[in-house]
Amino acid sequence: MNHPAEAAQPNPLLVWDTINAYQRSAALRAAIDLDLFTLIGNGAATSDELAAQTGAAARGLRILCDYLSVIGFLTKVGGAYRLTLTSAFFLNGKSPACMASTARFLNAPKLMAGFANFTDTVRRGGTQLGAGGVNEPEFSEWVTFAESMTPLMLNSCNAIAGLCGQEGGRSIRVLDVAAGHGLFGIAVARRIRNAEITAQDWPGVLQVALRNATQAGIEDRYRLLPGNIFAVDLGEGYDVILLTNLLHHFDRASCTQILRKIHRALSDDGRLINLEFVPNEDRVSPPIPATFSLMMLGLTPAGDAYTAREHEEMLAGAGFDKPVLMPVAQAPQTLLVSTKRVR
Amino acid sequence: MNHPAEAAQPNPLLVWDTINAYQRSAALRAAIDLDLFTLIGNGAATSDELAAQTGAAARGLRILCDYLSVIGFLTKVGGAYRLTLTSAFFLNGKSPACMASTARFLNAPKLMAGFANFTDTVRRGGTQLGAGGVNEPEFSEWVTFAESMTPLMLNSCNAIAGLCGQEGGRSIRVLDVAAGHGLFGIAVARRIRNAEITAQDWPGVLQVALRNATQAGIEDRYRLLPGNIFAVDLGEGYDVILLTNLLHHFDRASCTQILRKIHRALSDDGRLINLEFVPNEDRVSPPIPATFSLMMLGLTPAGDAYTAREHEEMLAGAGFDKPVLMPVAQAPQTLLVSTKRVR
Repeated sequence: MNHPAEAAQPNPLLVWDTINAYQRSAALRAAIDLDLFTLIGNGAATSDELAAQTGAAARGLRILCDYLSVIGFLTKVGGAYRLTLTSAFFLNGKSPACMASTARFLNAPKLMAGFANFTDTVRRGGTQLGAGGVNEPEFSEWVTFAESMTPLMLNSCNAIAGLCGQEGGRSIRVLDVAAGHGLFGIAVARRIRNAEITAQDWPGVLQVALRNATQAGIEDRYRLLPGNIFAVDLGEGYDVILLTNLLHHFDRASCTQILRKIHRALSDDGRLINLEFVPNEDRVSPPIPATFSLMMLGLTPAGDAYTAREHEEMLAGAGFDKPVLMPVAQAPQTLLVSTKRVR
Repeated sequence: MNHPAEAAQPNPLLVWDTINAYQRSAALRAAIDLDLFTLIGNGAATSDELAAQTGAAARGLRILCDYLSVIGFLTKVGGAYRLTLTSAFFLNGKSPACMASTARFLNAPKLMAGFANFTDTVRRGGTQLGAGGVNEPEFSEWVTFAESMTPLMLNSCNAIAGLCGQEGGRSIRVLDVAAGHGLFGIAVARRIRNAEITAQDWPGVLQVALRNATQAGIEDRYRLLPGNIFAVDLGEGYDVILLTNLLHHFDRASCTQILRKIHRALSDDGRLINLEFVPNEDRVSPPIPATFSLMMLGLTPAGDAYTAREHEEMLAGAGFDKPVLMPVAQAPQTLLVSTKRVR
């Protein structure tokens, strides 16, 4: 995403690179499937060594590793490949921040199908993935999602837990809406010993959240609330409601509907903490929040990456005050913290 | 391809960008299919105007144009989109250098299928596209190829015609091996009034070359030699033989076999002019020739982007002297000019 919008000269290589960009995704996925970054991290340095360890063709590995060297995931010196800082940190299977599972989720054929015949998707203005796209409860990839997105969410977890820590030592009730992997609520529970978490999501996904809660040793303070966000009874009186990476799947009317429901469930002095991709008002910066809209075009009927002003409008429509925005450090996302409007 | 191989900090955004890179290709292809660059070049400035002119959904167009603004093909000021220098020159359908047809060829589903299940391709070390991949004569995309690659080849055409111009005013016989669109031989014929071109390729493809020769008004000096390069009788005594973008489809033994055949067809003081993607000996630079190997891994059984030393070895094995290398100006390719070895 680091091509300058206006270069001094017309650049045919940018066109060539974009035409063939799909091969980058394919190459990275192949390297992850063959666990090359872990093997190279362990000391395998040549395509012959990698061939011996993976059983894959040395020719295929040589060409793949050369390509990975060009696009920034390996260095090559005298025929020996080494990890770069980025691949050592984010692609070596031994790194706690490894994003391999994220790649497997985001490059699952079922998701990528949202970008086949993409011209037709643009024409109709919404996904071709069945009626609800990834919003369908039976979209089985959500379980994979819940299991795979951990590495990307670490900084956001810390930021959210830090915010909740401001509640002091008092006992708080937290609702984690569309909990997914559950990591946000779990991070709060680990930070605040007397916090009680209620996790809402589809039943299959909640099993992943519960497993994570058990691994974190907080399962005695973890309740499950299975069901669709539009239909389920959320209860009331929560001190904190976490709404993370959900609104971008829906159109504004549906977002406002969700926010109204959350407003009713929140205590009068409670806080809504919303984690989202928030592009600037120009909608073309910064790169990751701005390009996230296209992902929603491919995968959902009417989702979007909403700007701060759009969030403000939707929140106002549901009875909230103007939110406080806080960018998450070293992550492309933003926290929006809202309280109920005083009438 | 402009990510530095070694950044100072591990960069999760590079991983994210690579995972989702396939969406760049999809977005560019959709914009080309909807002819957005031509419409914006003609003055359509907003997604609503584009919707009125294309019949596509304004929402789809807004998200697509925002995305194209992020990746360098549009600018956006106050909701109005404009072409960048690159898209004005290489994507506006009215530009003679428009690469839209190239994108249609390179992003044809039949070609992109070479990068589905790419892990298996790496494992086996060669294409999964049938027995011969794109090397099969019945691979119908070659006709599209012949029709589509013109814009990318303009500088190379000029460079080749310039080289042949050095023959002075004498009558020369030129063999254009695997002529494809025929543009290289045709460029020579236009430059040298008494040059006679023999174009070899599969019969269907030669029809495109003949059409181009007729349009250029040189059809009376244009002969067709239909057939497979490995089987056809090339004749002999040619002053110049053009061998453009062919060798990368084959393994070294097959390349040497082709070069031997060309050696026999060339007059003793004739020149072989070979146009290729030639990476440096490190195989990881410059970006386009270095990444071209991966395209051949996906699309052919054993093709490659050969280095200068490998070309030298194959040429020596076929009886040629060490070639003279000349990079083509403003293009990612190299001309290799060879003469027969004096014994």
